[in-house]
Amino acid sequence: MLSLIIAESSLELVPRELQSHISIKSHAKKLGKYPSEILLDNSWHFAAMKGLENEIKRGRPDIVHLCLLAATSIPLYHENEIEIYVHTVDNKVIILGDNVRLPKSYHRFAGIIEKLFKDKVIKTDDSVLMELKKMTFDELIEMIEPKSVIALSPDGMPSNYQSVGKELDDSCLIVGGFQKGAFSDEITQHIDRTYSIGEQSFEAHVVISRILYEYEKTIFM
Amino acid sequence: MLSLIIAESSLELVPRELQSHISIKSHAKKLGKYPSEILLDNSWHFAAMKGLENEIKRGRPDIVHLCLLAATSIPLYHENEIEIYVHTVDNKVIILGDNVRLPKSYHRFAGIIEKLFKDKVIKTDDSVLMELKKMTFDELIEMIEPKSVIALSPDGMPSNYQSVGKELDDSCLIVGGFQKGAFSDEITQHIDRTYSIGEQSFEAHVVISRILYEYEKTIFM
Repeated sequence: MLSLIIAESSLELVPRELQSHISIKSHAKKLGKYPSEILLDNSWHFAAMKGLENEIKRGRPDIVHLCLLAATSIPLYHENEIEIYVHTVDNKVIILGDNVRLPKSYHRFAGIIEKLFKDKVIKTDDSVLMELKKMTFDELIEMIEPKSVIALSPDGMPSNYQSVGKELDDSCLIVGGFQKGAFSDEITQHIDRTYSIGEQSFEAHVVISRILYEYEKTIFM
Repeated sequence: MLSLIIAESSLELVPRELQSHISIKSHAKKLGKYPSEILLDNSWHFAAMKGLENEIKRGRPDIVHLCLLAATSIPLYHENEIEIYVHTVDNKVIILGDNVRLPKSYHRFAGIIEKLFKDKVIKTDDSVLMELKKMTFDELIEMIEPKSVIALSPDGMPSNYQSVGKELDDSCLIVGGFQKGAFSDEITQHIDRTYSIGEQSFEAHVVISRILYEYEKTIFM
């Protein structure tokens, strides 16, 4: 079984120190929620986020949405051949259940994630769709116990999706859930091999689409 | 050169007959716009849309957003090896310029498209990013003059992305920009070959990601 970790994802609720900022208060009001209940989102909260610690890896829930849609709309996930985790920049982990149909509409996705951050679990009558745990990357890797940990990052060894796809059985694949920057040391110390695809830096959702497609070919064809 | 048409896309401004519906008026107010200026969106306007003509192909701008991100975040587009058109269910066509970086954040995307519907063009000082024309699918095909027109649809001949990718040179690829249903006759009469991939019906953004990736391999490798 392949595990996918979208690591250090820029997904969190508005942190306490920004909750009284005017741009955040007015955005929360529009949504009919308290500032503490809404996702930090650079596209609305840019002014408030200026100078925030580790700013480059924060406030991009849209990236996580696109990554999760890329990973869950495919046969690999429908056939339960992949486990999906979102590790966040402030060390929380979303464990995704089987056969979850995430909304393509962003505001609905945000609503679910905000509910998850509040309630720690989203479930139906007979299954758990998502769970949120306070968990470091260390602890997550310890829980998964993969055969090997393989990361995709622009600073890795040059390769291509097809070759990397063939190496993934029983591995844990790491893709960064942030816009820019490199993995922190806490992540890199667990990585066995890092590969780079192409010369440009790609959007995380494109990397996930392509690598999972190539892996899917190795197991379904 | 490959052309991609996202056909009969569920993208339009709120039509006149729905502009006075309470759910639409209150949503427009929240956005600080008139009902006539906002995109029809099933996830907000579900109540208003009940019983609307051709409902199944309307009010899903999120699908178009995901399709365009899948098609524009890749080397094929960055290297100007593909032309991208969004044909809408009410016969408008968005012609996408070169090297356009669409926002991943949905509300920013919606803002740009709403501006495009109003102004008919989005440009910077030295280039046209997007143009909107009143144009039928017939007229669009006539303008593109492709060598052949190839569609992906669940009712086509069984094939796979790799094989279809090898057929695409100088062709026009058609993917439906709607949630459910089949192409209308106006579209099918122009199609030379229709292929189906897999047994399930896939999300349009997944189909676009995979087929463009396979086509990209044939020209860059």
